[in-house]
Amino acid sequence: MIDLENGVLLNQVEEMVGRKRWSDLRDLLVLMEPADIALVLEALSREQLPLLYRLLPKELAAEAFVEMESEEQELLIQSFSDTELKEVLEELYVDDTVDLIEEMPATVVKRILQHADPDTRRSVNEILKYPEDSAGSIMTTEFVDLKQDMTVEAAIKRIRRTGVDKETINICYVTSPGRHLLGLVSIRTLLLAAEDDVIGDIMETNIISVSTMDDREDAVQALSRYDFLAMPVVDDEQRLVGIVTIDDAIDVINEETTEDFEHIAGMTHTDKPYLRAGVWETVKSRIPWLLLLMLSATFTGMVLSVFEDALAACSVLTVFIPMLMDTGGNSGNQSSVALIRSLSLDEVHFSDLLSVLWKEIRVAVTCGAILAVCNFAKLMLVDRLLLHNTDITIMVAAVICLTLVFTVFCAKVVGCLMPMISDKLGLDPAVVAGPFLTTIVDVLSLLIYFQFARLILRV
Amino acid sequence: MIDLENGVLLNQVEEMVGRKRWSDLRDLLVLMEPADIALVLEALSREQLPLLYRLLPKELAAEAFVEMESEEQELLIQSFSDTELKEVLEELYVDDTVDLIEEMPATVVKRILQHADPDTRRSVNEILKYPEDSAGSIMTTEFVDLKQDMTVEAAIKRIRRTGVDKETINICYVTSPGRHLLGLVSIRTLLLAAEDDVIGDIMETNIISVSTMDDREDAVQALSRYDFLAMPVVDDEQRLVGIVTIDDAIDVINEETTEDFEHIAGMTHTDKPYLRAGVWETVKSRIPWLLLLMLSATFTGMVLSVFEDALAACSVLTVFIPMLMDTGGNSGNQSSVALIRSLSLDEVHFSDLLSVLWKEIRVAVTCGAILAVCNFAKLMLVDRLLLHNTDITIMVAAVICLTLVFTVFCAKVVGCLMPMISDKLGLDPAVVAGPFLTTIVDVLSLLIYFQFARLILRV
Repeated sequence: MIDLENGVLLNQVEEMVGRKRWSDLRDLLVLMEPADIALVLEALSREQLPLLYRLLPKELAAEAFVEMESEEQELLIQSFSDTELKEVLEELYVDDTVDLIEEMPATVVKRILQHADPDTRRSVNEILKYPEDSAGSIMTTEFVDLKQDMTVEAAIKRIRRTGVDKETINICYVTSPGRHLLGLVSIRTLLLAAEDDVIGDIMETNIISVSTMDDREDAVQALSRYDFLAMPVVDDEQRLVGIVTIDDAIDVINEETTEDFEHIAGMTHTDKPYLRAGVWETVKSRIPWLLLLMLSATFTGMVLSVFEDALAACSVLTVFIPMLMDTGGNSGNQSSVALIRSLSLDEVHFSDLLSVLWKEIRVAVTCGAILAVCNFAKLMLVDRLLLHNTDITIMVAAVICLTLVFTVFCAKVVGCLMPMISDKLGLDPAVVAGPFLTTIVDVLSLLIYFQFARLILRV
Repeated sequence: MIDLENGVLLNQVEEMVGRKRWSDLRDLLVLMEPADIALVLEALSREQLPLLYRLLPKELAAEAFVEMESEEQELLIQSFSDTELKEVLEELYVDDTVDLIEEMPATVVKRILQHADPDTRRSVNEILKYPEDSAGSIMTTEFVDLKQDMTVEAAIKRIRRTGVDKETINICYVTSPGRHLLGLVSIRTLLLAAEDDVIGDIMETNIISVSTMDDREDAVQALSRYDFLAMPVVDDEQRLVGIVTIDDAIDVINEETTEDFEHIAGMTHTDKPYLRAGVWETVKSRIPWLLLLMLSATFTGMVLSVFEDALAACSVLTVFIPMLMDTGGNSGNQSSVALIRSLSLDEVHFSDLLSVLWKEIRVAVTCGAILAVCNFAKLMLVDRLLLHNTDITIMVAAVICLTLVFTVFCAKVVGCLMPMISDKLGLDPAVVAGPFLTTIVDVLSLLIYFQFARLILRV
């Protein structure tokens, strides 16, 4: 595998560019995978990029083009002559053209559509109609379609004739004259069948498909669940309009996962990889939640100020506030993250609400009890006996440990309910349950703490 | 797609079982995907499971078996006669047999190995040798290998003869007599080539492969990066020993992602889906971190107790402690999660440390300044002017806002350094940087807070 990490390769490329050793450079690049070529080209200066790009053979150039970030793609398109643009577009698959168009500014889009051939233009416009996160928006229209009365021999001939332009030939789709999906047949089945077998007899007819308007996340999760290489996409009238291939599905999985991570940590999603996003872009993705959470933490402050007198009367209580709030936050986080993940893997559904709640309650009581016992032992043995902290009476320890039990309980209940309910309401569980949970649990833990302090210590 | 969520299907199955309508049941099950059949069977009682399983045709039964959880697999194996076990094992791919063996207790493993055919046994033992998280441990040994002097016609004949037992025929590997990997050829290339073309002439020779001992995560990330359908795995002497197919790669991606989520939220990894893990299992995965973090929060408490007098002298300061600690925690979390994710997607490497640090510093200063300004405005306009809280002087507001700026700065610096450094040290960034960050940032924010209070308010 090419190791770009240590920079040796990049230095070598830049030296070759400096010495204008073009044919050596070409020999080096053609041995690399498109994704790696894209990385090398992106590391070059804006002047060198089009120069080096033109060294590549046409097909490899187009493959590397697809792998680049949109900034470089725009730069290259602007350096292309009309003929060059046409050539690149001819090599691209329809779904890659769609991805490209979605990222480019209007003037570039216009130029692309002008130079795409009419068939591509029609397919591109078709796919662009679907909403951003739909299955339709990530499909490709270039699949192999067979008819059910074909023989295996005829089917293989058809694949030989048309396969070069298809995104995959590994799974072929059998459609009726009205373009309804009747069945599918893998290339393996075709090869292992006799030449005069009829497609209709050997095709798989239990077909799982998604609809163009389904969420793209559901489409890729189903694809991964059933170990498919491609998922057929049908329209309202059950006509086959495209397929989602597994390599695109993996990209969606990775992107959706990144989005979940970002949401849990209170960031909005940025399309660019970490190092490519500018400072201001990063700030924009992070500051809204920070502001919102800072303001919502005002509630926690308000609770504290209500109990200011109690704290003044028994100042040792203040010392344990961070521990109680953090333990509550951690407990709630565990439950909410476990459920956010299970929901996104489709392992848990809203209908499981009661079993989830019952499980979390038992886990919470057990965890709370263990934490309380350990903390009680620590308070009595370490703080009181060893460190002679006489402020920590048995009663104070009791307040702290009871608070622990109840805080963990509330945190885990809220932590499991929030993602389940927001999923049911069609909201992203990671957005709702991630960042807000801390504030809610903070307030709850303080309220519980001062309630017990009042009851037991009479402050 | 089958919708198990609403339970209609399960009720239907249980009713059929109750009325012993076996042939209807069979007709219903054979139309379903193996993954769905597994879900249905798992929902049945321990007595009904083997009964229904025996309704399935042999091949489908084996496919559904692979999709089941280990508890049900064990139950089934124990209900199998020796002949039945042999039949199932014959249908399984080698890598599925390995997965099965890894989950079963010793007595069951012994029985499985006894009834596997010698070839499978040899391959299984080979794969079991590799460490748990290595590429070798997730590969399969059932790939198509071709020779470079074969014609396309001979190659297709060979695939027709041996392909039925291979995990995939979509990519075929060309090996030397010494089993060294020379090239690869996709089934598409084979079909589009002329029958008398020679494999050596049409094969792709720029091969990317991983080594048996590479981390499985690196293997699947490379596979996804290069849009491969399978990744060849070679041994120390560059001999081809297996391949990792894309469907197994997606499972690994999903599992590693779940592990990252769990680690960030302070949980150890459990193999089972959320609802399948028992209460005690869940407690065991959650309590260690809760305990550790509870004890480490003692430091935060110690810092607070050192400044008890300062807090008593200016009690309004207490009210803002949760807000400062939470904002610090949130800021740090954003950076650490962004980097944990980028590291696992291989977008950022240790060599980028300085650019990462420089970026985070600029983001931190910008975010800190915005937060400070907003907070200052809020303190002066809302708390002081509107709510007439006279405790909040300009000086107090200055302490709070300066603390914000410095806390966000420290939190983001620590938040980006911790994952980078732990990755460099070969530790899991999600384990190290996730849960501990809060405690570290808590302590830092309090130290900064009291330092400014002392400087500005002279408390």
